[in-house]
Amino acid sequence: MSKEKKLVEEITSMDEDFARWYTDIVKKADLIEYTSIKGCCVFRPYAYALWENIQHVLDSKFKELGHENVYMPMFIPESLLEKEKDHVEGFAPEVAWVTHGGNEKLQERMCVRPTSETLFCEHYKNIIQSHRDLPKLYNQWCSVVRWEKTTRPFLRSMEFLWQEGHTAHATAEEAQEETIRMLNVYADFCEQYLAIPVVKGRKTDKEKFAGAVATYTIESLMHDGKALQSGTSHNFGDGFAKAFGIQYSDKDNKLQHVFQTSWGVTTRLIGAIIMVHGDNSGLVLPPKIAPKQVMIVPIAMHKEGVKEKAQELCDTLKKTLRADIDLSDKTPGWKFAEYEMKGIPVRLEIGPKDIENNSCVLVRRDTGEKIAASLDNIAETVAALLEDIQNNLFTKALEHRNEHTYTAEDYDSFKEIVETKPGFVKSMWCGDEACENKIKEDTGATARCMPFEQENLGTKCVCCGKEAKKMVYWGRAY
Amino acid sequence: MSKEKKLVEEITSMDEDFARWYTDIVKKADLIEYTSIKGCCVFRPYAYALWENIQHVLDSKFKELGHENVYMPMFIPESLLEKEKDHVEGFAPEVAWVTHGGNEKLQERMCVRPTSETLFCEHYKNIIQSHRDLPKLYNQWCSVVRWEKTTRPFLRSMEFLWQEGHTAHATAEEAQEETIRMLNVYADFCEQYLAIPVVKGRKTDKEKFAGAVATYTIESLMHDGKALQSGTSHNFGDGFAKAFGIQYSDKDNKLQHVFQTSWGVTTRLIGAIIMVHGDNSGLVLPPKIAPKQVMIVPIAMHKEGVKEKAQELCDTLKKTLRADIDLSDKTPGWKFAEYEMKGIPVRLEIGPKDIENNSCVLVRRDTGEKIAASLDNIAETVAALLEDIQNNLFTKALEHRNEHTYTAEDYDSFKEIVETKPGFVKSMWCGDEACENKIKEDTGATARCMPFEQENLGTKCVCCGKEAKKMVYWGRAY
Repeated sequence: MSKEKKLVEEITSMDEDFARWYTDIVKKADLIEYTSIKGCCVFRPYAYALWENIQHVLDSKFKELGHENVYMPMFIPESLLEKEKDHVEGFAPEVAWVTHGGNEKLQERMCVRPTSETLFCEHYKNIIQSHRDLPKLYNQWCSVVRWEKTTRPFLRSMEFLWQEGHTAHATAEEAQEETIRMLNVYADFCEQYLAIPVVKGRKTDKEKFAGAVATYTIESLMHDGKALQSGTSHNFGDGFAKAFGIQYSDKDNKLQHVFQTSWGVTTRLIGAIIMVHGDNSGLVLPPKIAPKQVMIVPIAMHKEGVKEKAQELCDTLKKTLRADIDLSDKTPGWKFAEYEMKGIPVRLEIGPKDIENNSCVLVRRDTGEKIAASLDNIAETVAALLEDIQNNLFTKALEHRNEHTYTAEDYDSFKEIVETKPGFVKSMWCGDEACENKIKEDTGATARCMPFEQENLGTKCVCCGKEAKKMVYWGRAY
Repeated sequence: MSKEKKLVEEITSMDEDFARWYTDIVKKADLIEYTSIKGCCVFRPYAYALWENIQHVLDSKFKELGHENVYMPMFIPESLLEKEKDHVEGFAPEVAWVTHGGNEKLQERMCVRPTSETLFCEHYKNIIQSHRDLPKLYNQWCSVVRWEKTTRPFLRSMEFLWQEGHTAHATAEEAQEETIRMLNVYADFCEQYLAIPVVKGRKTDKEKFAGAVATYTIESLMHDGKALQSGTSHNFGDGFAKAFGIQYSDKDNKLQHVFQTSWGVTTRLIGAIIMVHGDNSGLVLPPKIAPKQVMIVPIAMHKEGVKEKAQELCDTLKKTLRADIDLSDKTPGWKFAEYEMKGIPVRLEIGPKDIENNSCVLVRRDTGEKIAASLDNIAETVAALLEDIQNNLFTKALEHRNEHTYTAEDYDSFKEIVETKPGFVKSMWCGDEACENKIKEDTGATARCMPFEQENLGTKCVCCGKEAKKMVYWGRAY
């Protein structure tokens, strides 16, 4: 028990210092190890297994909807990056430049992809000729690099893992449908698998992607009341197509420009899982995405038959669940603390007395509740418990978000809320970038999105008092 | 029929110009599209689907054997690359250097990983303390970059996809066991899934990996008689551990250096599939790895009930096989040629008469044979046919390799064989690098490997006539 306490004490309390609590968890739950390259981390097996589970669900969903995976080069020649004006302005300041190959200086330097719109455009120009070639629904899983000044594991790093969908369509309507379809895929995934409620909406022009006509976003709220942009979907209209000359001949044999979209989620989602569900004992993982859903910890392992029974139980559970067993000679107390730190949804304790009674003890990671359970139908019992935990995590996160979503009708209360009550602030906005800039300067809050579900909170902009056009979610963000 | 012929005519005959036949196939089977970056290609959906199938099988096998996936940064600081002397000499001439981040010049330049030994070593130094931490069995799926002067899709490109296993062990014996275990995983995979027979053996010191104590390889023979190194597994001994200071305390609390291995296969395997099985009509894919195993082509689609029956058949087959249907308005002839080009193992033709007779026609891609089949138990019939095709491809490839494997007992016949009979040449070797160099200079052939299955072909080195130490497979190689 002393070891358990000690381990737990090593984490900073989230109420004391949320940022340190976060970095303590990423280290102590064996998610991340730092490297000698500033801003680059090792994704350790536990973090990578989480990412693989995320990939697995999303990739199936993408393919169901007709998308195909491809792989593009990681390098972009400078001249290619420069083809779309807004795009290069947005990304050039934060790319890594390759200038030499072996001992030779390159004639033209190349950047490591910060995102691959330009490469997909070049490719689409080559392979799209006729309306029969459309739509093109491509996706890529890869890493990208952005030269960030300040970095934080998962949330903002020089290199991160992501998927980037890039599609080309015959009409503006189809591109818009795809943009919203994929935003909904992300939203459903976050809510149903990660147990993270999201607000769906459109970004303001100030916040939209470099080169997009419209950017849509899902925004989630972390435990500390800061917002996290958790996935984005962009409608490019025919802007890139015009810059790159991507045309198809329509049914009347006329040349038309294609309409494009792109959409992506990143390993940032792992940061969201940590900051939405974690507590002072460590990670808390939603069962649907947890690399291990149930960990068996035998008690009094030296007693006859305990190991064997526990192993038998593990074999049974493994048939339908991601189960594991710890047969090491570490103390049960150490094991309890370790698997709490790792956020494993259910711990199953079994000792000589339990075996006598044909029972075991299930411990929920989300509530700490201990439940005596019969060994009959144990797989079904654990499966039902996991489902309950999944639902409970979502409900708790939703309640937390609702409790931390405020409404401001005038600028004084807006400023007071942002300063004293971390969370989302809903208020009306005139649509003018000047107000966005003023709000950011005065409070540090940015327009997270103009939600699809608009509410009427008055007729005047919370900042300037002029006629309001949109209801906006504001907040300080990661 | 004219369209079909036309399509086929567009490919260069493999006997006429094998290199052009190869590049024709990678383009016309929609595997690769070139980009404006020299030596970098787009892996199109069909090629990437092949890679995903390869990944899926190998990844499961790695995990079964206890390996865990991680993700390391793509950048290596120059000072880190330089830590192991042989390693940096081997790789520094062929890396891409990043010198600027955004607008700033870096204090130390970084290369894009050509391979990640140095990163894994740095990480292992951080996370290995005790014998309880061993073994570490890590693997990574990623892309790597090597600045090649001459490139060819899949076989040699500036950027390629691969997996790299990196393990650390307490003893030299365990490291050697792991090295051979993983070589065997590769060999079994090539033979059982890709239907490519391989020769397993050890590389000569001249040909081994930069920094390794020993490199083991699987070598396969392409249709044109050139060899292809298809996978390698390296035993590093404790050389990297000493250079990087990776130590653990053993059971007696004494500090010891770890022993390490690394092993990898790449998208080069796709090149091997093309060059071992392909023919003048295009790709020929082994069923176990084919993205689509059976393609249904309805005949006289306008006739009543044909589309519906064909679709019903497709739905049935999809339950157990990777089946698809082409309902487009292209001619059957166009479709036949297209799916032959794509190497789909079985084509299923069904028209009004077949439907009347409760039958269909199955066409094997490997032999062209047409088989009338009852629609009763059609899934089982196709599955059995796929198995037969898989076996036949392996048998044909093995026969081809056996027919193109020669023995040379003296240098004149060695030179004549290499010059006139493309294939492997088996002969005895004294172990001296001077002979290897002379052979390469005189003939262009290199030592592919010292096979595990040694044969006694005499007592003298085929080149210098001195006492022979090893039987070697020689050949010109990709």
